[in-house]
Amino acid sequence: MTQATSLMRSLVVLLALVAFNSYAAPLPSWQEGSSKSAIIKFVSNVTDPHSKSYVAPAQRIAVFDNDGTLWSEYPLYFQAFFIFDRIKALAPQHPEWNTEEPFASVLKGDLKTALAGGEEALLEMMAATHAGMSDTEFTALVKQWITTARHPKTGKLYTDMVYQPMLELLNYLRAQGFKTFIVSGGGIEFMRAWAESVYGIPPEQIIGSRIKTKFEMKQGKPAIVRLPELEFLNDKAGKPIGIHQAIGQRPLMAFGNSDGDMQMLQWTTAGEGARFAALVHHTDAKREAAYDRDSHIGKLDKALDIAKTQGWTVIDMQQEWKIIHPEKR
Amino acid sequence: MTQATSLMRSLVVLLALVAFNSYAAPLPSWQEGSSKSAIIKFVSNVTDPHSKSYVAPAQRIAVFDNDGTLWSEYPLYFQAFFIFDRIKALAPQHPEWNTEEPFASVLKGDLKTALAGGEEALLEMMAATHAGMSDTEFTALVKQWITTARHPKTGKLYTDMVYQPMLELLNYLRAQGFKTFIVSGGGIEFMRAWAESVYGIPPEQIIGSRIKTKFEMKQGKPAIVRLPELEFLNDKAGKPIGIHQAIGQRPLMAFGNSDGDMQMLQWTTAGEGARFAALVHHTDAKREAAYDRDSHIGKLDKALDIAKTQGWTVIDMQQEWKIIHPEKR
Repeated sequence: MTQATSLMRSLVVLLALVAFNSYAAPLPSWQEGSSKSAIIKFVSNVTDPHSKSYVAPAQRIAVFDNDGTLWSEYPLYFQAFFIFDRIKALAPQHPEWNTEEPFASVLKGDLKTALAGGEEALLEMMAATHAGMSDTEFTALVKQWITTARHPKTGKLYTDMVYQPMLELLNYLRAQGFKTFIVSGGGIEFMRAWAESVYGIPPEQIIGSRIKTKFEMKQGKPAIVRLPELEFLNDKAGKPIGIHQAIGQRPLMAFGNSDGDMQMLQWTTAGEGARFAALVHHTDAKREAAYDRDSHIGKLDKALDIAKTQGWTVIDMQQEWKIIHPEKR
Repeated sequence: MTQATSLMRSLVVLLALVAFNSYAAPLPSWQEGSSKSAIIKFVSNVTDPHSKSYVAPAQRIAVFDNDGTLWSEYPLYFQAFFIFDRIKALAPQHPEWNTEEPFASVLKGDLKTALAGGEEALLEMMAATHAGMSDTEFTALVKQWITTARHPKTGKLYTDMVYQPMLELLNYLRAQGFKTFIVSGGGIEFMRAWAESVYGIPPEQIIGSRIKTKFEMKQGKPAIVRLPELEFLNDKAGKPIGIHQAIGQRPLMAFGNSDGDMQMLQWTTAGEGARFAALVHHTDAKREAAYDRDSHIGKLDKALDIAKTQGWTVIDMQQEWKIIHPEKR
């Protein structure tokens, strides 16, 4: 076989693979239903060069909330478990935590009391455990935790509690030329430590809440040091601001699951031309959790009303997802 | 001709084009010299799968300062001319500017006095002219200006005063799997309005200084409104922080031209494995401008000393660039 023939054969194989990939039915874990067809219809429309709604790849931006949209969040954000584990690990260096709330309750295992102070208590614990080290050190801590810690209820690794249908959606959109971004209220560096291997989303496409940092020379080496002060809360009206800062263009598609995502979806759909917004509705008490208007986590109330008047897609997890989390790998 | 044969022929043509592109000599506007060979040697090394210094495409991040690195900046940042033109356009609505400095001097055409207040005066003028409108309105103003305004000295469109050798470098790096980012002290939305068409760098790969913004509903429509207050100055120690916030990984290559880029280059080269830093040295009084240690714009002093001890590449514009700005198109 000549080199040219061999090369040609490789090309034919490659071409066959590409063709197979394009024609494989997308979103296999989604039931044939209104959400799946709405997604595919929208994507086909904006990627068809002959469509009036055609959008060039450079503007095909899709944004995803993380907690409750790409992975589970009930009954408590996974990052909160990381915070609790950090408090336990750091307790020997902080004898005052034995009597100081909310730390004392965390150390006693009484999470209900620890979280009685709501978001403020959580932010206080985040500042106390996520700062005072370099960015490199923090990333190493998260990586160590995310590959070993297990969810108290399911016993699974947290990264095994991502949503299989959403993984397929991310892949489908990228195959259609979209750039996928996370836009989450969660900590940006917490997510960046593992999101690329789990979702295929690189660090520069992750937007989140962040604490202050400063640049300094430490023992003659430059370092970025994490400070115990919140700098930016990427939630509610913060989400369009976070998108504006980091992406600088309005998304074409936005996916969320709570009132914290409402402004992101409003901002997205108010753009010119075709736009798409969807809410993941947690309706599956048996396979995951059922919650919306009265939930303390992932409250979905106003945004659910707006979805109806604005024609946003509401994804009914119980009805529309064949699988919730990936099957054992 | 069968369909399969026709397809095969298209593939052969495609393959030939790819091959041609790969083998075309890179960086044609660069003299054969130490900078060109250092760049090519570094890139060949980190992109060679058999090299010990191999870096996967996802981590091939190259960052570029803008003013003085990708386009001219002397004797004054181009964005300052935009600010002056905005002041003139807005003057009828601001009768107080006729007596208030630095505005009064700008309106009289006395830029020296207007800029006597240094960076603070410039920031005050920026706040007064870059805020009080939506992001969409601001982008439209910049686009209108950048396509019509001309540099007072050269009479050229500002976008024709980019550096041809750097355009070639951006293209070369992207062809080698790099993601190229701008990391500039200039205004982020000012650059985003034109950088994609000029440099091929999309909005989400542009990092700059920014003023505060807020999300609000304006006549029932969501809007991002620009506020007259600086939020983040992406200069000096701000550059590694800006990179950390927006990219979340340390660059592999960094290009600057002044002491304002020093920390970015230090941060880049302190990373593990092979790293590359270069300074564009403005040595060409005849074709552009010669300035470094004593300049009021683009001061290059400390960074030039560090370059020598750290082995950073110093690009001598006069010696190493065949062309400065693109020839008439």
